[in-house]
Amino acid sequence: MKVVIVGGVAGGMSAATRLRRLREDAEIIIFEQGPHVSYANCGLPYHVGEVIPAEKDLLLQTPQSLKNRFNLDVRVNSRVTSINKEAKTVAVKNLQTGETYTESYGSLVLSTGAKPRMVPIPGLERAVVLRDVPDAVKIKELVDQKKISSAVVIGAGFIGVELAENLQHRGIQTTIVEFRENILPQFDPEMIEPMQAELVKHGIKLALSSETAEVREKTLVLKDGREFDADLVVAAIGVVADHELAVNADLKIGPAGGIWVDDQMRTSDPNIYAVGDAAEKTSAITGQNQMIWLANLANRHGRLVADVIAGERVAARASIGTGIIGAYGMAAALTGLTEGLAKRMGIPHQVIHLHPGSHAGYYPGAERVSLKVLFDPESGKLLGAQGIGRDGVDKRIDVIATAIYAGLTIDDLMNLELAYAPAFGSAKDAINQTGYVGNNVREGKTPNIQWHEVEAAQQAGAVVVDVRTEGEHQAGNIPNTELIPVDSLRNHVAELMGKDVIVTCEVGQRGHTATQILRSHGIKVRNLDGGYTTWRSGMDARERAAQK
Amino acid sequence: MKVVIVGGVAGGMSAATRLRRLREDAEIIIFEQGPHVSYANCGLPYHVGEVIPAEKDLLLQTPQSLKNRFNLDVRVNSRVTSINKEAKTVAVKNLQTGETYTESYGSLVLSTGAKPRMVPIPGLERAVVLRDVPDAVKIKELVDQKKISSAVVIGAGFIGVELAENLQHRGIQTTIVEFRENILPQFDPEMIEPMQAELVKHGIKLALSSETAEVREKTLVLKDGREFDADLVVAAIGVVADHELAVNADLKIGPAGGIWVDDQMRTSDPNIYAVGDAAEKTSAITGQNQMIWLANLANRHGRLVADVIAGERVAARASIGTGIIGAYGMAAALTGLTEGLAKRMGIPHQVIHLHPGSHAGYYPGAERVSLKVLFDPESGKLLGAQGIGRDGVDKRIDVIATAIYAGLTIDDLMNLELAYAPAFGSAKDAINQTGYVGNNVREGKTPNIQWHEVEAAQQAGAVVVDVRTEGEHQAGNIPNTELIPVDSLRNHVAELMGKDVIVTCEVGQRGHTATQILRSHGIKVRNLDGGYTTWRSGMDARERAAQK
Repeated sequence: MKVVIVGGVAGGMSAATRLRRLREDAEIIIFEQGPHVSYANCGLPYHVGEVIPAEKDLLLQTPQSLKNRFNLDVRVNSRVTSINKEAKTVAVKNLQTGETYTESYGSLVLSTGAKPRMVPIPGLERAVVLRDVPDAVKIKELVDQKKISSAVVIGAGFIGVELAENLQHRGIQTTIVEFRENILPQFDPEMIEPMQAELVKHGIKLALSSETAEVREKTLVLKDGREFDADLVVAAIGVVADHELAVNADLKIGPAGGIWVDDQMRTSDPNIYAVGDAAEKTSAITGQNQMIWLANLANRHGRLVADVIAGERVAARASIGTGIIGAYGMAAALTGLTEGLAKRMGIPHQVIHLHPGSHAGYYPGAERVSLKVLFDPESGKLLGAQGIGRDGVDKRIDVIATAIYAGLTIDDLMNLELAYAPAFGSAKDAINQTGYVGNNVREGKTPNIQWHEVEAAQQAGAVVVDVRTEGEHQAGNIPNTELIPVDSLRNHVAELMGKDVIVTCEVGQRGHTATQILRSHGIKVRNLDGGYTTWRSGMDARERAAQK
Repeated sequence: MKVVIVGGVAGGMSAATRLRRLREDAEIIIFEQGPHVSYANCGLPYHVGEVIPAEKDLLLQTPQSLKNRFNLDVRVNSRVTSINKEAKTVAVKNLQTGETYTESYGSLVLSTGAKPRMVPIPGLERAVVLRDVPDAVKIKELVDQKKISSAVVIGAGFIGVELAENLQHRGIQTTIVEFRENILPQFDPEMIEPMQAELVKHGIKLALSSETAEVREKTLVLKDGREFDADLVVAAIGVVADHELAVNADLKIGPAGGIWVDDQMRTSDPNIYAVGDAAEKTSAITGQNQMIWLANLANRHGRLVADVIAGERVAARASIGTGIIGAYGMAAALTGLTEGLAKRMGIPHQVIHLHPGSHAGYYPGAERVSLKVLFDPESGKLLGAQGIGRDGVDKRIDVIATAIYAGLTIDDLMNLELAYAPAFGSAKDAINQTGYVGNNVREGKTPNIQWHEVEAAQQAGAVVVDVRTEGEHQAGNIPNTELIPVDSLRNHVAELMGKDVIVTCEVGQRGHTATQILRSHGIKVRNLDGGYTTWRSGMDARERAAQK
């Protein structure tokens, strides 16, 4: 058995080490065009910020260590330039010597990854990218040698935001330019707004809904004429599958723009497999092919392809897509569908927002975990979730990701038995509360209305009643609301009879109680989902997107 | 609709507030024998330790606040002394005035909780207990007024250990006396050993496998003659259902010693319900009735019983049982079955131990998360898990608890898509690694052997090969092992041919690779599960249990 693997990072190296464990006698060759294999891709921005100070900490294995442990033939600085499917060979160029040669294979695994997307912006060739260890080292050296004092990152995806935080942390005045209306556009705007506010609080400038006109020497110019100092420009506009090798070999490219594979990671050629960022995934939620740029899927599919090549009967599960980003002690995470995506795809959904604590409020250090969950109105099946906060966000999103994997419903979240002691959770954990809120909405006990629907409802005659205290109301409120604290609402039922009422509180909980009181008197009432907190975030995000 | 609730903490108050939301017009009366309702039961030990400094922080609601918000008739210092099932009335004694009266009900909910278990030990009447806010205030006052400098806690359950940490934190020399071989005997010994070591490191004395003979003035004497200073003795021997009221009313008591209820929390009388620590639960794993003393189940079943009384069709899920305890920055958590329980109940199971990182090793601050997982050998279905460490334990146990709830298998853990960025997890998260290890064990690729089986295997002729480095081997090793580092194992295959080999490394990962190398040559080999780390914890726990 002779297996050739192209690309020696997440997917490729997982395939190689698993295959060795399954087949001690297989010949396994890994070609990597860069100088390193098995490096910490997701750690690159943190090397720039000196959070991971030493370059060597990014290098998890060397060709020699992989030879010793796994008897692998790892060839770095070696670019595979073409595939001959009929002869089952690849052409390889040694980038150090210039030598070219041919290597045969029984099975070929393409783990060629993704590369930064470039767009036709004048001067963009001045920009740097961040794809591998040498890129990170280069950017860090510019900072270390005090050659830059300002930077603009074009693109506010995961890498763009992580890199911006790390540059700003090093004392570089950093601006993020993003074409869409919010950073991390994978998230819905009201959910990512707290992180936008946090970046701005730490001095990062955000230029949202903004297109770059030109990258000049030392400045970057937007199409609206604004100019930002830019000793360094980073192009982090997104990534595309690095599938040139596959295209040139006439392998099938899928509808999402990646290498097409079946559920065994086999391409349109039976002897060639593809894994990782270069390959398409099937969405577990929509059933459609899509690109999901996640290291965990690359690793998993690398292991799986080794099993397939070794003759085991295995098949990949469709992908949900779960991601997280941290910045300034805050975390934002998501799994499955967002509201934006569900709307664009026409997928029926109900939405809830809530803002429970990371642990029991009576124990010190509890932080707010803001959650948004989508579920199917008919079946209650969970479709997706987003979370943001300073503690416990990863835990809640991981639990919901597990629930989605298992096909659980919003009602099931009520019954999950999660570890509770006051330092770790609540007797009614954030997840259980999510189930309760969703169950009340789904059963029609507490019909809700979203933050972006309030204004239109008011124009159509709805009355908004703020059921918080007078102090809370004065600290900030929705325009044209009436204040009736929930504890005195029972005395004010008569004046609301016959009206179309929207109740709002701080996070939606008192609004739920208020809804029940008014409903019991036959009043039509909806609870503002997530309360003033969600509404405020949504409006702040809108204002920020419009700022010039 | 008139509903009377006995007990105003977790289960009772959840029932009351939910019922109000469902039935604005219901008459709801709550009787509570203590001075407080809705207090933070699980926070009591932390009030003693001044982690929660003010008594008022433990009091989440007052009768007045519950009247205002939920129109509830809350009567504290009011003990229900008997039930007349036929007349549907309860007799109530006002503990402040001595007055007694009768109250009728349509539905009656018993949420009477659990009370400390007392055993016939001479002098135990000198001991205090910790059940409610006045108990916590009393203990804290003794400490505040410097009336005690030493304490003995009898019983090392959750409350006993939490209280010991808090007393020691206040400068009180504290000893824990535990009848069984390890603290927190809900856990398997090798899993809880790191917490035992941590308590001892912070000055707490542990007397395990020890029975109290007598509580004297200022000392406590064990049956083996040892004496400990004890200005204060706390009886935390465990709890029993506080079900006297139910017993006297001839309600059925179940096989586990709690009030018997059906899946709608209905007792043997159709108008009486029971929830919380006084009521039995059905185990989702064994199908048997059991007592589970957890606040989250009390809250959940309180909500459920309100739904039932309001006429909704709902039924409780069987319980898994998930718990966590923190001490000195360490967390120990468990869900479902332990190995000890599975053995006692004769439930077939396979066991794996592993010690992955809380997040990517290349990002600062990663901590070891030690995990133990049980699954069904036939179906692979998850049966239970335990975790211990300084970070990320609650997250992993919550994910596995969710997986158990959903009926997932050990193999499913490979495919869960969990939120990964280097500060939060790993591309192959601890949970995915658990799936990989379990899958390799279950498919027979890497047969394992447990720490407590090694000695017998050696006596039967097995050869133990330590595949770590020489430095690791010298720092601590299993008696009678041969050192062959994994990277040179391929050169030593010949000398192991025909032998019964056990390989061991630090955590089991290199052992897995070593197992594959030897197996490919037809050698019978088993991997020491969890490596030297688990073996060491197991042996340390044994030694500690035998210490006098």
